[in-house]
Amino acid sequence: MSALTLTLLSAIICCSLTEKPSNVSSPNIIILLMDDMGWGDLGVFGQPSKETPNLDAMAAEGMLLPNFYTANPLCSPSRAALLTGRLPVRNGFYTTNGHARNAYTPQEIVGGISKDEILLPQMLKKKGYVSKIVGKWHLGHRPHHLPLENGFDEWFGAPNCHFGPYNSSIRPNIPVYNNSEMLGRYYEDFKIDRKTGESNLTQIYLLEGLEFIQRQTVARRPFFLYWAADATHAPVYASKRFLGKSQRGRYGDAVMELDYSIGQIMSWLKTLGIDDNTFVFFTSDNGAALISAPKEGGSNGPFLCGKETTFEGGMREPAIAWWPGHIKKGTVSFQLSNVMDLFTTSLALAGISPPDDRTLDGLDLTPVLLKQSTTLQNRPIFYYRGNELMAVRLGQYKAHYWTWSNSWEEFKKGINFCPGQEVPDVTTHDQKEHTLQPIIFHLGRDPGEKYPISVLTKEYQNVLSGISPVVEQHKKTLVPGIPQLNMCDVAVMNWAPAGCEKLGKCLKVPKSEPLKCDWPH
Amino acid sequence: MSALTLTLLSAIICCSLTEKPSNVSSPNIIILLMDDMGWGDLGVFGQPSKETPNLDAMAAEGMLLPNFYTANPLCSPSRAALLTGRLPVRNGFYTTNGHARNAYTPQEIVGGISKDEILLPQMLKKKGYVSKIVGKWHLGHRPHHLPLENGFDEWFGAPNCHFGPYNSSIRPNIPVYNNSEMLGRYYEDFKIDRKTGESNLTQIYLLEGLEFIQRQTVARRPFFLYWAADATHAPVYASKRFLGKSQRGRYGDAVMELDYSIGQIMSWLKTLGIDDNTFVFFTSDNGAALISAPKEGGSNGPFLCGKETTFEGGMREPAIAWWPGHIKKGTVSFQLSNVMDLFTTSLALAGISPPDDRTLDGLDLTPVLLKQSTTLQNRPIFYYRGNELMAVRLGQYKAHYWTWSNSWEEFKKGINFCPGQEVPDVTTHDQKEHTLQPIIFHLGRDPGEKYPISVLTKEYQNVLSGISPVVEQHKKTLVPGIPQLNMCDVAVMNWAPAGCEKLGKCLKVPKSEPLKCDWPH
Repeated sequence: MSALTLTLLSAIICCSLTEKPSNVSSPNIIILLMDDMGWGDLGVFGQPSKETPNLDAMAAEGMLLPNFYTANPLCSPSRAALLTGRLPVRNGFYTTNGHARNAYTPQEIVGGISKDEILLPQMLKKKGYVSKIVGKWHLGHRPHHLPLENGFDEWFGAPNCHFGPYNSSIRPNIPVYNNSEMLGRYYEDFKIDRKTGESNLTQIYLLEGLEFIQRQTVARRPFFLYWAADATHAPVYASKRFLGKSQRGRYGDAVMELDYSIGQIMSWLKTLGIDDNTFVFFTSDNGAALISAPKEGGSNGPFLCGKETTFEGGMREPAIAWWPGHIKKGTVSFQLSNVMDLFTTSLALAGISPPDDRTLDGLDLTPVLLKQSTTLQNRPIFYYRGNELMAVRLGQYKAHYWTWSNSWEEFKKGINFCPGQEVPDVTTHDQKEHTLQPIIFHLGRDPGEKYPISVLTKEYQNVLSGISPVVEQHKKTLVPGIPQLNMCDVAVMNWAPAGCEKLGKCLKVPKSEPLKCDWPH
Repeated sequence: MSALTLTLLSAIICCSLTEKPSNVSSPNIIILLMDDMGWGDLGVFGQPSKETPNLDAMAAEGMLLPNFYTANPLCSPSRAALLTGRLPVRNGFYTTNGHARNAYTPQEIVGGISKDEILLPQMLKKKGYVSKIVGKWHLGHRPHHLPLENGFDEWFGAPNCHFGPYNSSIRPNIPVYNNSEMLGRYYEDFKIDRKTGESNLTQIYLLEGLEFIQRQTVARRPFFLYWAADATHAPVYASKRFLGKSQRGRYGDAVMELDYSIGQIMSWLKTLGIDDNTFVFFTSDNGAALISAPKEGGSNGPFLCGKETTFEGGMREPAIAWWPGHIKKGTVSFQLSNVMDLFTTSLALAGISPPDDRTLDGLDLTPVLLKQSTTLQNRPIFYYRGNELMAVRLGQYKAHYWTWSNSWEEFKKGINFCPGQEVPDVTTHDQKEHTLQPIIFHLGRDPGEKYPISVLTKEYQNVLSGISPVVEQHKKTLVPGIPQLNMCDVAVMNWAPAGCEKLGKCLKVPKSEPLKCDWPH
């Protein structure tokens, strides 16, 4: 955004807000969700290039959560889990087409978020929250799957990844929506220069976020902003001002621009005087995509492998909670926590009871965030890949019941989820079962999952006897949801999104040919 | 140290220092040198366990140097380089017994620091500095090699690593000296419980440091304190108060105690009112020893391999410069720099001209530290292993001319310098020459050295044509020093150190049997 725009926005504010807004009981909620950004991409988490002064400052002013997880090592299920507070295997964001396969929502997917699920913005309505998503949705792109049909009041962004450019006959370019109608398409109306990496999208998303915050503040309505920028997902992009500015190329440039934008959002809250009434949480949807590294992928710091895997590099996420006057400055909580907790925690902050007709996997983290409580210490973390429980973390220990990175077939073609890393029996290219004798790591001493604890030790036996009943209980009580990511069809692609007529951008829809989606890893 | 001791020390100070010491022109210099601590062991460099609030605060109050290097991936040569400002291949801290082998100063070593070398404390005397080393010396343990014979005025610590316990016939325990006489021996008089990891050594070193600082401050003499604690070198230890306190076991406990101690030193400087007249530099001697991990070894964060190797994990070091009012708060400098610069920079701070009769490898970093200058940008980093130039970094690029981790023979016995990591053609177990076609990495995009740049690219050719003349020039002008680490002899071990008579701790010296030392890696 230009300095001019910001000045204009400030002018609007200073004239409309003559007094500081009253401290309403329900704080505003902002979730800043990055796309494929790794744990190791933040300065405060050790990125040598130190591109994130604003996020580092946010951590210094808030709470850092080094043991924060996603619910799935891939974008769509992770996002569905965040918004429903439930594991993908419960909310249907998985496939049964193959064992332990990652599924998501490419544009040929037939499914999306089920009408049986309750999403965070739907719940927040009970207390009058206005909700907006800026950026990537990824919970299905057919009309009934879109954000405004699922609790959001506003949307600016796209239903799918910004892959492309595509031609208009075999595969249409992804639409960008403003609320319920398309505004244009990537590469056509919203430029991303695949050669130089230049795009103004992050600046547009920033402006959309600032404008929404400002509007709700003036109207004195509590708001939920789900800011889901995607500049760090390949093809990575940055605007001209940031290109070439980082130590590590285009990926780092994108991180710098996102960090800058988050700094703008934080300072906007202070300018508007709503910082002490706004809870902000920063995280990412899954680990850095090492298949796109080093030119278009990030860093998982000391962790093993990356996106697509249930090793720490795939599922441990950078996480910062910020709420001046409520969350103690400069604190670190080692609480095991995850994206699904954001659902339950947001409801607790808003003073809304969570739905009681379904199993929720998210916990209410407010005792941890507001009182540095450690009472939630014994909660486990479940690492799923598709329909399989691959691993479980309890306390400092993680037990792998199944391992695999990707198939030998893919690996031989050069697709590698663990480049430069090889832990025997762990980063396997077969789906390898260890149910009878899980591979156990101590994640405190060994965050990189490189030193399996010998099965002959007392430590191993003690750990196993603690984890086994947790796994048993989980499996015994789990009722999987109906899998939503099994069927694909070229006819459901973004040929003619709502609003295309006005723009003359409707494309011819091909004949429907439903078939089982192929999920190779 | 007990709270009581600190109170007593404070009482001494408050009564002896009635006015703030005048701001003398030559600042005090403190170098805090850790032992086998890795880049990834600091919170600010991404350790998930976040054990270093004091070091993180030091970084926030000073300058972080993410591109800081040691001169050798092993303790003795690294320390010799720090104190002489010269590469080990120049100052003699290497061996010619084998090609590209790491050598150091175990107690059977005959050699040590040459009388031809000029050490930092010798130079600092020109401006009246009083110098003390607290902790590990490691530049030779025969009488003429010891600190007080080489420029230091005071010493409290040991000449060698705290390995042991040894019996008194085949191998004596290492002595602990107070100045020029032994005070006792490790495991006998200075306890380290190998089973529990308990030892008060760090507390003793802390007190020695605080007491020295206090004494020089009262006497109004500029001082150089070289605080070389060794709790993070295996066998790692911590005092009772810290044992079991970290998230990652005994190693993390040791880090917490070192961090606490550094916090005490920094706050002591403030209490004494000499913080704005004291330059403090924190770093480590080499990368974390992954052979001791995960129970007794640290973390190299995102970097490849560890101690003993010329990959980034072996030679990239955590580094923080601190000098309130002179070094700008919260800055990051990407300057390529190394331990040898501490020699030259300390002289510049003290206003002393460096020796002009020899080649120095250290640069004066004061423009970088005090003015955030970037004029030193084109300086290379040389990665030596023993007598071989293994790799060179210039700007963001690193070219490997030779690779090896350790021999197949050792590797098959379970000695692994790169556990869980394997980069084809890079982490080799043969000494592999790549002189004609070096393996090149971009350390910005790829700090973990996992993605070699293809030799077919223009980028590779451009980089090579920039690095080649630098390497050629270096090799052409290099005059290796006489190797000091070739000969070993059981007779030179610490059987009867000075002062042993008074303590009744002299042991029988066996017959001299000089032989070439065996350096296996």
